[in-house]
Amino acid sequence: MSGIAPTAAPVLPIRGRFRPLGLPEVRVTGGFWAERQSINAAATLPHIEHWLERAGWLRNFDLAVHGDLARDRRGREFSDSEVYKFLEAAAWEIGRSGNADLESRFRAVVRRVAAAQQPDGYLNTRFGGPGQAPRWSDLEWGHELYCVGHLLQAAVARSRTRPGADDGLLDIARRAADNVCETFGPDGLDGLCGHPEIEPALVEFARVTGDDRYLAQAALFVDRRGHGRLSDVEFGREYFQDELPVRQATVLRGHAVRANYLAAGAVDVAVELKETSLLDAIRIQWRNAVARRTYLTGGQGSRHQDEAFGGDWVLPPDRAYSETCSGVGSVMLAWRLLLADGDPEYADLIERTLFNVVATSPSADGRSFFYTNTLHRRELGTQPDADRPSLRAAASLRAPWFEVSCCPTNVARTMASLTAYVATADDDGLQLHQYLSGTVAHRLADGRELCVTITTDYPHDGRIRVRIDSDDDRPWSLSVRVPGWATRGATVTLCGDTRPVGPGVVTERRTWRRGDEMVLTLPMTPRFTYPDARIDSIRGCVAVERGPLVFALESVDVPGVETVDELRVDTRRPPRLVDGRVTVTCRRVRAREHGWPYRADEAGAAPVPGDELDEVSLVEYHAWANRGPSTMRVWLAEAAE
Amino acid sequence: MSGIAPTAAPVLPIRGRFRPLGLPEVRVTGGFWAERQSINAAATLPHIEHWLERAGWLRNFDLAVHGDLARDRRGREFSDSEVYKFLEAAAWEIGRSGNADLESRFRAVVRRVAAAQQPDGYLNTRFGGPGQAPRWSDLEWGHELYCVGHLLQAAVARSRTRPGADDGLLDIARRAADNVCETFGPDGLDGLCGHPEIEPALVEFARVTGDDRYLAQAALFVDRRGHGRLSDVEFGREYFQDELPVRQATVLRGHAVRANYLAAGAVDVAVELKETSLLDAIRIQWRNAVARRTYLTGGQGSRHQDEAFGGDWVLPPDRAYSETCSGVGSVMLAWRLLLADGDPEYADLIERTLFNVVATSPSADGRSFFYTNTLHRRELGTQPDADRPSLRAAASLRAPWFEVSCCPTNVARTMASLTAYVATADDDGLQLHQYLSGTVAHRLADGRELCVTITTDYPHDGRIRVRIDSDDDRPWSLSVRVPGWATRGATVTLCGDTRPVGPGVVTERRTWRRGDEMVLTLPMTPRFTYPDARIDSIRGCVAVERGPLVFALESVDVPGVETVDELRVDTRRPPRLVDGRVTVTCRRVRAREHGWPYRADEAGAAPVPGDELDEVSLVEYHAWANRGPSTMRVWLAEAAE
Repeated sequence: MSGIAPTAAPVLPIRGRFRPLGLPEVRVTGGFWAERQSINAAATLPHIEHWLERAGWLRNFDLAVHGDLARDRRGREFSDSEVYKFLEAAAWEIGRSGNADLESRFRAVVRRVAAAQQPDGYLNTRFGGPGQAPRWSDLEWGHELYCVGHLLQAAVARSRTRPGADDGLLDIARRAADNVCETFGPDGLDGLCGHPEIEPALVEFARVTGDDRYLAQAALFVDRRGHGRLSDVEFGREYFQDELPVRQATVLRGHAVRANYLAAGAVDVAVELKETSLLDAIRIQWRNAVARRTYLTGGQGSRHQDEAFGGDWVLPPDRAYSETCSGVGSVMLAWRLLLADGDPEYADLIERTLFNVVATSPSADGRSFFYTNTLHRRELGTQPDADRPSLRAAASLRAPWFEVSCCPTNVARTMASLTAYVATADDDGLQLHQYLSGTVAHRLADGRELCVTITTDYPHDGRIRVRIDSDDDRPWSLSVRVPGWATRGATVTLCGDTRPVGPGVVTERRTWRRGDEMVLTLPMTPRFTYPDARIDSIRGCVAVERGPLVFALESVDVPGVETVDELRVDTRRPPRLVDGRVTVTCRRVRAREHGWPYRADEAGAAPVPGDELDEVSLVEYHAWANRGPSTMRVWLAEAAE
Repeated sequence: MSGIAPTAAPVLPIRGRFRPLGLPEVRVTGGFWAERQSINAAATLPHIEHWLERAGWLRNFDLAVHGDLARDRRGREFSDSEVYKFLEAAAWEIGRSGNADLESRFRAVVRRVAAAQQPDGYLNTRFGGPGQAPRWSDLEWGHELYCVGHLLQAAVARSRTRPGADDGLLDIARRAADNVCETFGPDGLDGLCGHPEIEPALVEFARVTGDDRYLAQAALFVDRRGHGRLSDVEFGREYFQDELPVRQATVLRGHAVRANYLAAGAVDVAVELKETSLLDAIRIQWRNAVARRTYLTGGQGSRHQDEAFGGDWVLPPDRAYSETCSGVGSVMLAWRLLLADGDPEYADLIERTLFNVVATSPSADGRSFFYTNTLHRRELGTQPDADRPSLRAAASLRAPWFEVSCCPTNVARTMASLTAYVATADDDGLQLHQYLSGTVAHRLADGRELCVTITTDYPHDGRIRVRIDSDDDRPWSLSVRVPGWATRGATVTLCGDTRPVGPGVVTERRTWRRGDEMVLTLPMTPRFTYPDARIDSIRGCVAVERGPLVFALESVDVPGVETVDELRVDTRRPPRLVDGRVTVTCRRVRAREHGWPYRADEAGAAPVPGDELDEVSLVEYHAWANRGPSTMRVWLAEAAE
């Protein structure tokens, strides 16, 4: 066991309730996530590389050296960041699998990036070159600091998975970060970036390099936000969280990706600098956002207009923006809070978001993506051209690439680093937060080496078997999370003894012996879920869930039905598991056609009841839209009683 | 009676079921609309002129002559059009009231506009000047043809209200229109405008000038649309109705103002050129838009993102865009269809839209405006600064001016020309479509002069008294509309005989004598209205209407209640009229606070019932938000039984 290496993970805080485990301590050996990690490596990463080249976003770096960027540059302001996110994803994947081919492609991309860096460390293909807008001339929309942030995160991933690698990425990042500190330091430009990202990146870069100057710069950026330094825009300063200081806000608001990235950075700063009040503020923002502004899937953002959080309880399923990237950002934030506080609610949201947002974005083949993740589709779509990028980030169809293509690379880096979100340790033992088949090995601070093997078919089966694979004479704690949805029927079995457990953390402290087992059994009966009455848009509707998975009614599963809006669900009959499929009983209704859709008589406005259908199969939400054009609902209208 | 002048009205088709009456045939003497016309003249028009000057949009015309437009021009691409819409509004107002001061201000603005016209007739302050983008270089977003369209409509208004006026506006318009025809004619640029408006304007200009070249050009623009000549944009070509030829579309779609303006122009072309299939297509589009894509208020457009129609049944009250301008456009379209076909449903929608959208936009003092007209406001807003333009067209608060300030000028021109939508004639008599106190006088084609006086407190009283003020030995027809909402209880009284009538048109043909009366009595009991079950966003809700007015629950009317979302309406007790106020019985509920707003137990998700309140007063929807910050709902959640 002495081969256990230092943790390689995206987030390594100096302190907190739990220490994260990452590569190589956590290994995934099979199941839901293992499959997705394979597809990510085999299909998604090459797909992204292909599109970065094809769209010209990689070539922009070459043009910075040899060409005329002002004339020939391709892509939006932030296209550099997609290259960096690809590098980050590749770094995690190389760390995970040691893929030699990917290693050489990674190095080739780093060389192209390196060539474009200016002597003073500035690195951006959109600003500052001959004929281009000056550096830092558009902090609202220019995304320069945002791009540096993703460069730093790529370097963090690389230097943790291949410490001392001679590819030069860490040095490129260090020079870019130094340039940021010199430019935006206490005596420099009193500005900040319209899209947060540099904040968590600088903190992590400080953790990697041990240089607190980066941390101080991150703290400065967090402090500067919320005072109207960015100019007012059509969507208001709330769009980039500049209308209210971070410490004063009580809920996540504005652009949902920006909000989550900023909050993640604020947690990082708060943890490093022991800023209790800052951490308290983010906790409150997170709790309120989860209680009032989060979709059943964990998705966040209900406005297409500005990709933003709506007001409290504004969660329309049909206009759910629920951007894939805000799902990624939400996982980033909840993970940081979990490490800081240890509360299982954070892991609950991570689980929900990973299964129902992050896993929903890529198609089964890993080569097309949802940018937004709607919960209701009324019209049969047409399959987007698999060979053309989509102009429309807001289209509710998986497309191979987008003009704004943040989501595919965000999915890729999350999938490649997924093992980092599974388990943690403290001085007394291990905590398991997410369930998949694999192993967790960790050396405690006192030198004891702990190792467990997890075997499960979760999320399709509720039994999670944790076998101890290490021997130790002293007691240590093993904790498992009972998800918030497991309100009834969960049990833990230890050495033949089974006892009921409720949502929260179950900790067993004992002198574990090799071969000991702790079995967590979660209740996997499909269930109806009812919304808070304040969510106007889904009044009178129910959803169906099983375990952590949200289900959807998709028209391809209902013969003869093109639009699932014609169906009403009979809530007197609970959903059932039939031959591995979750089913509900539905009635078909036929709407009356009116010239004017508002009627004085209630009965006249109601649809005409039609046939009761046999049990209708639902689809796991993440898997919908993989079988051709379809209509879909997560929230099903209840049949009148 | 021989003083009856030729009709002055915005739309004078060559043929159709009815001929429109306008100034001076229809005079308004008092009541709801008379008040608003007074405020429009006394407050809104000077307010607009002030802002056009202050925002620099008028000065742009001066810069075209003496300055550097490339450097100093202010405002968006379409700001010229606001100047033209002001001229149109002023022309109608001068025609209505003969205001001499306004006449001289009108002339002063025309002189400034005239000076900016190029020798070949081209007129636009945003394109074509030194250092500016070339003419017609951005048909998607440039709005050049759109601006010409509004210039033509101003000239139409002026030449109909002051035929032969020596201000030069008609000539300016003619030269601009000629330039359009020369540039975009059959052998010219094969293009069209991203924002329809030139189409109806050219047809009307052909009607004014008698020059069919303008009509042919309008027809060409209508034919060119829908073939992808405009480039694809983020919102898709549907945004400017360029994804499908006008004759093939079956519903209004895309940007709601664009859609209505285009359809209005298509009706104009169809009527002039007897293009039956084109007219049929627009009828179908209108019917489907009204049945599936229109708010209870008559408002259209449910997407903030692209100011567009949503899909069928996508009508969220809280995100209702319902742009004031799309209400104006909807009135324009329905009026043209009414003239062509005579169906009362068109007048029903006009009535609903005038009372609940157009009248809602301006504040009580006529100096601030809703751009969008939401049906649900959850949060107390803050009163916008009465001295600052709003950046945010989508903000649900009345503001004095906007960066995109299309709505105030559109309200002004509609209010000033409102008499044009009241009555029509055919060879056999008069038809009254909208009810207000005033007179209608008209000389039939055979020379007979008809005159009636209407006396009513509509919409606050249901009795509409029509007195005949002319004598004629031959019979003629007098028609009144029984609105679609008057499903029960309407009566007509003629010479003491009262009979029940239902929705539709009631026509009485007789030899009318001076002093004869026809009294239409409409049922004014407040009523609950239920939505079609396919409108997901208002399931389980009811609205309250009285006559043509939609009502709202506004927090300022409920002592101790800040958010009206806490209230549930008891639908077992019908709304009542109490001392002139419409009231409903409500129960207050208290939501349970959950960390996660989706629950496995239905009862746990439901709110806790609280006190039953006494009868709560509702506000006429158009009058809401005139008493300080408030929350508001049109659709009220029903109390559980």
